[in-house]
Amino acid sequence: MHTEIICIGSELLVGTINTNGAYISEKLATIGLKVKREITVGDDFSELENAFSESFNRANIIILTGGLGPTFDDITREAVSKATGKKLVPNKDALKIISEFFEKKKLKMPKDNEKQAYILEGAEIIPNGLGTAPGQILEINGKIIILLPGPPREMKPMFEATVLPHLKKRFERGLLKIKVLHTVGLAESVVDEKIRKIVDVERTLEGGEVSFSILAKHTGVDIKIIASGTDEMLIDKTIQNLKKEFYNVLKNFIFGEDNQTLESVVGELLFKRRKTLSVAESCTGGLISHRLTNVAGSSMYFKEGVITYSDNSKKRLLGVKDETLNKYGAVSGDVAQEMAEGIKKISGTNFGISTTGIAGPKPSSTGKPVGLVFIALASNDGTKIRQFQFTGSRAEIKDKIATAALDILRMNLI
Amino acid sequence: MHTEIICIGSELLVGTINTNGAYISEKLATIGLKVKREITVGDDFSELENAFSESFNRANIIILTGGLGPTFDDITREAVSKATGKKLVPNKDALKIISEFFEKKKLKMPKDNEKQAYILEGAEIIPNGLGTAPGQILEINGKIIILLPGPPREMKPMFEATVLPHLKKRFERGLLKIKVLHTVGLAESVVDEKIRKIVDVERTLEGGEVSFSILAKHTGVDIKIIASGTDEMLIDKTIQNLKKEFYNVLKNFIFGEDNQTLESVVGELLFKRRKTLSVAESCTGGLISHRLTNVAGSSMYFKEGVITYSDNSKKRLLGVKDETLNKYGAVSGDVAQEMAEGIKKISGTNFGISTTGIAGPKPSSTGKPVGLVFIALASNDGTKIRQFQFTGSRAEIKDKIATAALDILRMNLI
Repeated sequence: MHTEIICIGSELLVGTINTNGAYISEKLATIGLKVKREITVGDDFSELENAFSESFNRANIIILTGGLGPTFDDITREAVSKATGKKLVPNKDALKIISEFFEKKKLKMPKDNEKQAYILEGAEIIPNGLGTAPGQILEINGKIIILLPGPPREMKPMFEATVLPHLKKRFERGLLKIKVLHTVGLAESVVDEKIRKIVDVERTLEGGEVSFSILAKHTGVDIKIIASGTDEMLIDKTIQNLKKEFYNVLKNFIFGEDNQTLESVVGELLFKRRKTLSVAESCTGGLISHRLTNVAGSSMYFKEGVITYSDNSKKRLLGVKDETLNKYGAVSGDVAQEMAEGIKKISGTNFGISTTGIAGPKPSSTGKPVGLVFIALASNDGTKIRQFQFTGSRAEIKDKIATAALDILRMNLI
Repeated sequence: MHTEIICIGSELLVGTINTNGAYISEKLATIGLKVKREITVGDDFSELENAFSESFNRANIIILTGGLGPTFDDITREAVSKATGKKLVPNKDALKIISEFFEKKKLKMPKDNEKQAYILEGAEIIPNGLGTAPGQILEINGKIIILLPGPPREMKPMFEATVLPHLKKRFERGLLKIKVLHTVGLAESVVDEKIRKIVDVERTLEGGEVSFSILAKHTGVDIKIIASGTDEMLIDKTIQNLKKEFYNVLKNFIFGEDNQTLESVVGELLFKRRKTLSVAESCTGGLISHRLTNVAGSSMYFKEGVITYSDNSKKRLLGVKDETLNKYGAVSGDVAQEMAEGIKKISGTNFGISTTGIAGPKPSSTGKPVGLVFIALASNDGTKIRQFQFTGSRAEIKDKIATAALDILRMNLI
């Protein structure tokens, strides 16, 4: 089944990263539909009309995102109408949904939004729970054309609630499953070397195949197992066996799978062990607490955090000693230790984590280099202090420090 | 100059986000080259050959990334060779560069890597400092074809060091400048209505054009002015005049331009006014402090933050009264006020900001709804308290609250 995606938006051709294509192609893969081509065009009528007509000749399924808004540069409805010859007709249900959207917000519906209630003749409406642009599903000679809005927070729920079930019913041929393993603490080349003997083996799967990909981010490396076929049990078993092989070579460096994050895994461990945590941040400036509290239910184990961005606040809020600051400087293992022990004590938690370092872009006034960091973990078994030298931009260094701190806690909990 | 980008890689069609297209298009825009279309295909010979041939018919400049590795599924060289009729020939310089790459790492060069030393007849090599795949620049009948490796950390330095200067010299005809205005506090439909009378006017620019785009994120709406032409002074003047028109209708709702962020603008204002800030966060869990400290030099005005995720910590760290918590609950204007005044007092700063609310996904145990938030700003002029009702996911609600809090402070400083 030849499937193509067309993403519409001028901003996508002058630097904005497109995440819709990746999202849609990944979801389609789960029902065995492989995307053959993805095309991005600007808010340009003739360019979109051309690109769409070409796709329409090649593909059986075309999914378009973007250009369904009420504004002057939203042209998807009109371009598809012209290319397919299907008229745009006002749709009462769509108009009702749009006007109710404004009523709920106690706002008057602007005249322009009426444009969004025009539907390609014969199309089905895809309800949009979070915005004013309804989607559309149109079938012409057995080909399916799907129009979706561009903003991911509107598009994604519509795709999952309506588009995916619709396509699954109409087109499902095979199955494809993806398993992601997240690692932390190893360079890409090291992961690559360790897993080489697994990924280099040619594997066959009835009516499908197994492939791998490796994705390096500055905070860790992900491994993706992609298995397709016709027999779900066989696919599951293959993924299970491969998972075991990866765990055998990577062990504890794998911290989680699929939608898990380092902070969700740390949270689960704290919750299971009935332990509580507090955080004292200097160079990470709140990022560790922010990541921990991104996890719903984190108030069960995360009790409090302080961001002591000045020497004064390190002394006053955490009891860091004047002499320690004077002797070793704020960026030192000794200060990290006093910070971690201080926050653990004042908040009465089982663990206290601290960070102090130079996030950059300039070295410290005392000449300590950018990326030099001390992380301390205080627990009832004493305090562990670790020193790191990270590289990257200020934002990357903050990310790396927060990741290292969370991982030190994870290693202590497993 | 019709420019297209082709990204090659099967992983890009099963869920991996493609950042190369955005990077290249943004860089090209700086020398006045607008990308007309971006195409993504898998590691599939005939699909790539077709896509490339079509682009080759339409475009003057085609930039391909990916598929230059040493393995069987790296097919870009071969597909371009077949489509253009240019033979692949072994290149001694390329082979030398590749073998030196392995020597430097004290590794034996695998036989497969020899494949990477084959160059399209007549092409120029683009050195790759960080990997084994050299790039290629080929000119056929005035059309430019550029082959680059896929990994961003290899591709980006090659693009900047070789490709961009080459294209600039060969093709720069005109100039394109982009000006972004960032707004906060207005819905997309409201911004659109307000700016309609500006964007609906047809404008001409010698040898170029002016266009607009509007981009809504859940924390604010951006307006982009894109002006191209041949006369830099005229482009600058046009952008200046348009900027004035937008400021006239949007006033203080525009908080910054281009690379400015809400936190960098707030930081500049605090620095200019010689004011200091401390933050007491509950539902935002550290996000406000994290955003503030993403700005280099923020230690000049940001002194400390506390994340009081429990009632106990609100009382102990901030002096919130038991009776206030009992009478109104932790999510209340009264508690927000005591938090803001508490952090201002204990840290001795000019401003204290606080947040307390329900980030979700579940309502509070006392039935307060998800998204209900109180933000307080304590200053020497007294304390302002505001109530909000936000919608969205937990992460979105945290973002919206942090944005609203920073904007309240901004409004107080201008």
